[in-house]
Amino acid sequence: MTETQLTDPLALAEALIARPSVTPVDAGAQDLLETWLTRLGFEVHRVTFGDVPNLYAQRGEGGHRLCFAGHTDVVPPGQMEAWTTPPFEPSVDGGMLRGRGASDMKGAIAAFIAAVAKTSDTPPLALLITGDEEGPGIDGTKKMLGWMQEQGYSFDHCLVGEPTSREVLGDMMKIGRRGSMNATVRVEGRQGHVAYPHRADNPLPAAARIASALTTLELDLGYESFQPSNLEVTGWGSAETAENVIPAEAWVRFNVRFNPNWTGETLLAHLDRVIGEAAGGAKWSWNPRVSGEAFLNDDPALAGLVARAVRTVTGRAPELSTSGGTSDARFIAKVAPCVEFGLSGATMHQVDEQVPVADVDKLADIYAEILRLYKEGLL
Amino acid sequence: MTETQLTDPLALAEALIARPSVTPVDAGAQDLLETWLTRLGFEVHRVTFGDVPNLYAQRGEGGHRLCFAGHTDVVPPGQMEAWTTPPFEPSVDGGMLRGRGASDMKGAIAAFIAAVAKTSDTPPLALLITGDEEGPGIDGTKKMLGWMQEQGYSFDHCLVGEPTSREVLGDMMKIGRRGSMNATVRVEGRQGHVAYPHRADNPLPAAARIASALTTLELDLGYESFQPSNLEVTGWGSAETAENVIPAEAWVRFNVRFNPNWTGETLLAHLDRVIGEAAGGAKWSWNPRVSGEAFLNDDPALAGLVARAVRTVTGRAPELSTSGGTSDARFIAKVAPCVEFGLSGATMHQVDEQVPVADVDKLADIYAEILRLYKEGLL
Repeated sequence: MTETQLTDPLALAEALIARPSVTPVDAGAQDLLETWLTRLGFEVHRVTFGDVPNLYAQRGEGGHRLCFAGHTDVVPPGQMEAWTTPPFEPSVDGGMLRGRGASDMKGAIAAFIAAVAKTSDTPPLALLITGDEEGPGIDGTKKMLGWMQEQGYSFDHCLVGEPTSREVLGDMMKIGRRGSMNATVRVEGRQGHVAYPHRADNPLPAAARIASALTTLELDLGYESFQPSNLEVTGWGSAETAENVIPAEAWVRFNVRFNPNWTGETLLAHLDRVIGEAAGGAKWSWNPRVSGEAFLNDDPALAGLVARAVRTVTGRAPELSTSGGTSDARFIAKVAPCVEFGLSGATMHQVDEQVPVADVDKLADIYAEILRLYKEGLL
Repeated sequence: MTETQLTDPLALAEALIARPSVTPVDAGAQDLLETWLTRLGFEVHRVTFGDVPNLYAQRGEGGHRLCFAGHTDVVPPGQMEAWTTPPFEPSVDGGMLRGRGASDMKGAIAAFIAAVAKTSDTPPLALLITGDEEGPGIDGTKKMLGWMQEQGYSFDHCLVGEPTSREVLGDMMKIGRRGSMNATVRVEGRQGHVAYPHRADNPLPAAARIASALTTLELDLGYESFQPSNLEVTGWGSAETAENVIPAEAWVRFNVRFNPNWTGETLLAHLDRVIGEAAGGAKWSWNPRVSGEAFLNDDPALAGLVARAVRTVTGRAPELSTSGGTSDARFIAKVAPCVEFGLSGATMHQVDEQVPVADVDKLADIYAEILRLYKEGLL
């Protein structure tokens, strides 16, 4: 690949898509990145935790350092035969780039590399790339941030390249994400025959009160740009018995997406009280697990800079959103202000994942504009 | 077996227990009965429906006819190795007769045969015996009653020999039974990711409202000697999904034991309204099945006669109860007044099913006293 080609985001994206890097397999995707970044003058570190490949690279000194964060891993292709063209053979068709990872998020990595390649005077830069964003999230970004601290590496601001646009490129960026908690509540009773309920202890009345309390719970009315925290009961069950038998156990499973009105800890204490009151005297237990705290980028300058770059290239003022699922930004936001901007996520994780070729080019232009504004110190 | 032995209820019970007549197998149990009844001057009919053996016998004319109803079939022995002695080898041990069917209800059949054998002047009698009381209940007593009508056989009162005593012989008899309904309510929604609940349609809030409505429902305050009708939620479930996914379906299963305030039909209409209101706009369906209507023996003379016989032999005034599970009395009560009295059911359906030998003798005395009082026209 010649120097010119490093400024061609489509060629870079195609090269990355051709590496079938389904979590946690790398399949040479980070080898490619290392080659490109080395040619662009970056100092590159490959760090493996467990079976997860990670990469940290940096270039330049003096002034604030801007980090680009993302992941080379992709979700499995799903039904192979349903794809119009094989998922790991990138194809351009009717102006669309198709292939697993086109949107989430090899297209954005390619755009960032191209932006760096075509920008003559960048600020100090870093890249924090993991191969475990779509997986358990244990041996990826979280551990890399610890490794960076040990090694004395740091950055001042972070741009995450996740697909944040909805319908068209530039209509949305993310300045925070809700936290997430999963839990199963178990109520214990005593089995018995329905004809003699006084000899049994049916766990279902208490479990029904708990399910009702959870499905009707209002946690808050929202927080700044966040929607209200929301609890969804996602399943329930009971010990298997014959039709005429009261079961010994019943359970209710739920997930909460919570805004910064709550931390995992305060939410846990609140729900413990809500469930306890609904349970009455019944014997119950639960296993709450907080997989991510809510965060909000409280540095309006960073969000403003990215929004300005988006508007300059696309003419659109992006909505500053905190909606949707979690991303590695939840880890990064703990060490530096962090916003997310990338391609449209309309087809991410689906068969025939695809993005307009024009969007990949425009995203490279937006990232280049961000580098320029950041270098000018417009924060 | 000599004539004398027909007056020995223990010997008769042992002979019946030795026939492993697990529903619907007869294993010669009704052959024994036919032999005994023929020797006692009964006209015996063996009638098979499907694979179920049934027996109808009668003796004598003139005056009211009293029927003894019961079953020769038994439930499976369960864990064979847990039995102290093999379940189909009757044993007498510390004053207890042990073996499958000792309580439910070969002991009672033996006691009735002995009562007839030792009573010189009985009223007109009938025996209605099925081999399907512990099974589906389709080809047993219900069909036999139809057969009897076709053949022109009938009786005026019925005594069912089910184990009705609780702690000691004579502490309880049954003058009715509650009806039973089973149903599963299904609520249909649309699957989706918990982070985007507005794109899904979670069936669990409506299902939780239904579960709450059912677990807190008061159907009535009782009916004459019946306890209040009772609904038990016996299980619930939902479509299996990953932890972060809203399921497309949830269901709630329940059983109702209802007193004569309700028929299956009125109960169904009431619950349909209760569930519909709780469901709100949600899409739901259910499959109610009434396995037995409630009945009450409204002939106080029959209950009084049996209670008097019990008190004469045991010194106890039996509680006139309508509690517990269903029995074939639910079918018989439609054609004639019907009460139930038999041994203690404390170990029925369990490993090491057993009854005191003395109780088998006393039950024969009680049944003989019932024959005497009935013959005297004390109804």
